[in-house]
Amino acid sequence: MATEYLGIDVGGTNVKMGIVNAENGNITNFYSHDTGKWRTSGHFVDNLGDAIAVQLKENPEVKKVGIGVPGLITRDRNSLVEITAIPEIDGTPIIPMLKKRFADCDFYLENDANAAALGEYYFGEEKLPEDYIFVTLGTGVGGAAIIDKLVFKGGGGNAMEPGHMPSKNGKVLERNIGKNELLDLATSMRAAYKGTTQLASDGTISTTGLVAAAADGDELALAIFDEVGVMLGDGLVSMIRILDITTILIGGGLSASFDYIMPAVNRQLSYWLTPYYLKTLLVKRATLANDAGLLGAASLCF
Amino acid sequence: MATEYLGIDVGGTNVKMGIVNAENGNITNFYSHDTGKWRTSGHFVDNLGDAIAVQLKENPEVKKVGIGVPGLITRDRNSLVEITAIPEIDGTPIIPMLKKRFADCDFYLENDANAAALGEYYFGEEKLPEDYIFVTLGTGVGGAAIIDKLVFKGGGGNAMEPGHMPSKNGKVLERNIGKNELLDLATSMRAAYKGTTQLASDGTISTTGLVAAAADGDELALAIFDEVGVMLGDGLVSMIRILDITTILIGGGLSASFDYIMPAVNRQLSYWLTPYYLKTLLVKRATLANDAGLLGAASLCF
Repeated sequence: MATEYLGIDVGGTNVKMGIVNAENGNITNFYSHDTGKWRTSGHFVDNLGDAIAVQLKENPEVKKVGIGVPGLITRDRNSLVEITAIPEIDGTPIIPMLKKRFADCDFYLENDANAAALGEYYFGEEKLPEDYIFVTLGTGVGGAAIIDKLVFKGGGGNAMEPGHMPSKNGKVLERNIGKNELLDLATSMRAAYKGTTQLASDGTISTTGLVAAAADGDELALAIFDEVGVMLGDGLVSMIRILDITTILIGGGLSASFDYIMPAVNRQLSYWLTPYYLKTLLVKRATLANDAGLLGAASLCF
Repeated sequence: MATEYLGIDVGGTNVKMGIVNAENGNITNFYSHDTGKWRTSGHFVDNLGDAIAVQLKENPEVKKVGIGVPGLITRDRNSLVEITAIPEIDGTPIIPMLKKRFADCDFYLENDANAAALGEYYFGEEKLPEDYIFVTLGTGVGGAAIIDKLVFKGGGGNAMEPGHMPSKNGKVLERNIGKNELLDLATSMRAAYKGTTQLASDGTISTTGLVAAAADGDELALAIFDEVGVMLGDGLVSMIRILDITTILIGGGLSASFDYIMPAVNRQLSYWLTPYYLKTLLVKRATLANDAGLLGAASLCF
């Protein structure tokens, strides 16, 4: 029988958990708990413990539990520091608490973006090298770096906040290419555009519409994604120069635009980087979608 | 008797070596060899080996040798990859070669900027935390990160090239604030300046003159360093966000301008960073000067 891990993805809306087959990433015993209810009870961590108890009782062969949380954690990966969506658990030494209740299990805590990045290594569709940068495009621009198959923690434990690097226009990267900023850019470029385009001129452009238009070869949509690609590309250059990592995975909801931002991303990478980097450079799309959080949490158990 | 290490600083002009007292950083048996002569002989590594043999014979108690080189090395720290100043040694497996000749000694290879950064930990004037960023200001802008008292290698082994991060004006950081660019900026700001200044208007401004003027409170000189500080500060923010390290050391020849660039650096750091970083943020000047290379090489032996 294959090794199995309990993966737990703590989110602001749901706490998802399931038993993950370590060999193929199949998920069984999936539960989605309501984060709000646990918060209202005033005993979030106890509720989490109870849900873990149920899983471990149903799956007594599972001895390792990985937990991804949306926020800052201590460098020793034992305690929560700043979980913006569930602030009442800030400061909780969650790993020692769970270890006390479940003495025969090992627990692994990680930031959820870091966990999702690691999940690509163990459960992604394609074989990855042991070092890569993972960048998520969405409302914000998140990230992680995996070095030697391990989450890169940096100095204080919470490395890789690429969305907060200074970028163009006196703004940080995610305030230039986050979802809302992408739509603002699209609206403004649409207003100034004289050519033919399928993009609405009434301020109702959606990201889905933008991607669909780009897929149809719409010049304006492609020009909008080109702008985004330039800024993302420049940010990637900084990460590559600091980390000396040349495999880049792009994930997150806006990675649906991958094919349309990549020409500009590649242009910037070729412009700024030397052969030392370019000879191994590879930018590709992350492969885990909805289950990225849960599989990422389970991947902490390897 | 205190532990002693042999430190070797391989440079494009000289190869400096000396016996370093591990406790206080005192250097004895100092030799400076001519890099050009060793190159002309066609046996650079043999010459290096001979010089090491002399040192080890004179100091038989020394069993560890640290070597800093000006260029790229392999991630396993055994071989030279790209030493621009001495290209004929590119690809040399220098550590196995030396180990074969001196079987009872341990050898440690590192990039010279990384070694100098680590030297600040072991031999610097002030106690440092175990994680810090080191940035050198000179003709180029170099750097290193120390994490857990170790050189951060990144993925490929050659992390931290902050001078090559995209910066303002479509240029990388070191093409904005390197020594020559600083002087160009000074000349151009001088030409446009209507006020009183002690800076020469005939294109002969020197970095020494700039620092002296700033020390005298010259407004133009201070304005020039302010521009530099803004660009350096923005670059530091990117490093801090990627590495989660909040102690920054500034070294290199241009760090003589430290006091005059710091107001702008601090302004940028305060503007972009959150309390999580600011509460432990500390930017200070590196303390090792001329001996930084040799002491850095010796610090690899700890």
